[in-house]
Amino acid sequence: MAIVIIRQDDKIDVWKQALLNRSPNLKVYSYLEEHPKEEITMALIWKHPIGSLAQYPNLKCIASAGAGVDYIFDDPDAPQHVPITRVIDPFLASDMSEHVLALILAEIKNFNTYRVQQASQEWKPKNYKRIKDITVGIMGLGELGSLTALDLKKVGFSVQGWSKTKKDLKDVSTFSGKEGLKPFLSSSQILVCLLPLTPETEGILNKELFLQLPKGAYIINVARGGHLVDHDLIAALDNNLLSGASLDVYHQEPLPVSHPFWNHPKIFMTPHYASVSDTNSVVPQIIENYERLQIGTVLLNQVDRIKRY
Amino acid sequence: MAIVIIRQDDKIDVWKQALLNRSPNLKVYSYLEEHPKEEITMALIWKHPIGSLAQYPNLKCIASAGAGVDYIFDDPDAPQHVPITRVIDPFLASDMSEHVLALILAEIKNFNTYRVQQASQEWKPKNYKRIKDITVGIMGLGELGSLTALDLKKVGFSVQGWSKTKKDLKDVSTFSGKEGLKPFLSSSQILVCLLPLTPETEGILNKELFLQLPKGAYIINVARGGHLVDHDLIAALDNNLLSGASLDVYHQEPLPVSHPFWNHPKIFMTPHYASVSDTNSVVPQIIENYERLQIGTVLLNQVDRIKRY
Repeated sequence: MAIVIIRQDDKIDVWKQALLNRSPNLKVYSYLEEHPKEEITMALIWKHPIGSLAQYPNLKCIASAGAGVDYIFDDPDAPQHVPITRVIDPFLASDMSEHVLALILAEIKNFNTYRVQQASQEWKPKNYKRIKDITVGIMGLGELGSLTALDLKKVGFSVQGWSKTKKDLKDVSTFSGKEGLKPFLSSSQILVCLLPLTPETEGILNKELFLQLPKGAYIINVARGGHLVDHDLIAALDNNLLSGASLDVYHQEPLPVSHPFWNHPKIFMTPHYASVSDTNSVVPQIIENYERLQIGTVLLNQVDRIKRY
Repeated sequence: MAIVIIRQDDKIDVWKQALLNRSPNLKVYSYLEEHPKEEITMALIWKHPIGSLAQYPNLKCIASAGAGVDYIFDDPDAPQHVPITRVIDPFLASDMSEHVLALILAEIKNFNTYRVQQASQEWKPKNYKRIKDITVGIMGLGELGSLTALDLKKVGFSVQGWSKTKKDLKDVSTFSGKEGLKPFLSSSQILVCLLPLTPETEGILNKELFLQLPKGAYIINVARGGHLVDHDLIAALDNNLLSGASLDVYHQEPLPVSHPFWNHPKIFMTPHYASVSDTNSVVPQIIENYERLQIGTVLLNQVDRIKRY
């Protein structure tokens, strides 16, 4: 039994070290080094090269090093019957919640406008909005969406949530399914997308949806680039249907320099860094699952291959 | 008895109307129209022209339409023995608190950096900080400073406060006086200035103070431009003693276009609009004091001419 780490960024060594710090006798390899393929039972991955998972005949668990797993379903060569797990990092949800709160406050206090004005030495006060007067709609009430909704509520926002299947959240009005979308959207002055990316949610942030929001609504996409129809967003901003957008995720990352988002005065961009897995807080879950594999018991945070989350 | 409104912006009519809406029989004049000087007992002012208060022989109250009164002490011709009142607007404090929270979050989530990067199409993720790991120091624990401190504490920041004389605030460590300044500064990663502007606090945000902060501290000045020594701030930013600053107030407003703050990549500017008096929520206090003048009883929110706040 051994673990292979597969990812294309520069963090393989950080993860390897974090695993070994916690469990020094573990056999852990980088997929870039020489390693015994048939010994590998767990692949700890993040945006692996397509096809790279196919080379392990005894793989028992594909462990995503993040909350998202959509990239695994995008790999046609990924083994079809190996359990997939994801990571539920307590900080992953609270980091996301803090990021979303920061984005919403920046918008209602006009920081996005003032940044643009500062660049051209314009002194033009604009009336701000108050927390108590804002209704935030959260799409997606999984770990991240639920905590974000509850935290925003605590700070004083009116909060409502929408999810595929009905969820109950304290002090948060919740809507669900296709029939719940319209009433949910019609009162969401700020719309936050925290949905999983599935065939059903791909392109959900499109013209038709924007038209159901209150005029001048603000969009925050911190889920996946695939949720958004880019040219629909630009059109909706340019004809003032929407007042602005904050984006953390994109169809292609890093976003190509030629993409119109970069220079759009109503778009604020962050480089897919709203919430990143903290190696140290996540490693215990990986090791726990690795031990569960050995005794053959049920894995933590296993992904439903049908629901894809 | 009558009220005169003296201010140099375009809001005289808004205030006049708000007073009359509440109390239709009031005699209210704009200082720009013909009006009987000897009838005036209350001047409702905001940044009046120097000398303009000297022309009312029967003035009984100088009512500042904002929380600040420093501009009244800057007028050598303002009557010396007429009581000064200021406005305690419940929204004034909560608006300030929301603005400060928004600024702090924007900074710890690197929005200021990302804004600069977006302008040059740079994709460069930077580790964010978490609320729980940040200690905010609030200078000035009056109405605005106290509420801001308590609200930041509620959101999860470590908060400490400093004031001229000792104040107690629930769950907030407080420091006071000259001897309290050093320990307060040495642990304030983010320093928020909410002091009144007095001869003692003028220029308090200077090189000497910056040197006592943790390296890489962040400065937020939402009090008065006169608290800050502009060139000391620029020097401290340029040699990385401080990591950045958010400013809402300036020595001259609007800030002249030639001022180096406008183009400084580490300075985020807002146009003195963190918290503005809401006419409707403040007018009842003005009218209450006007009625108290008539029966000769003690005024609400009277300013101490020695302390100047």
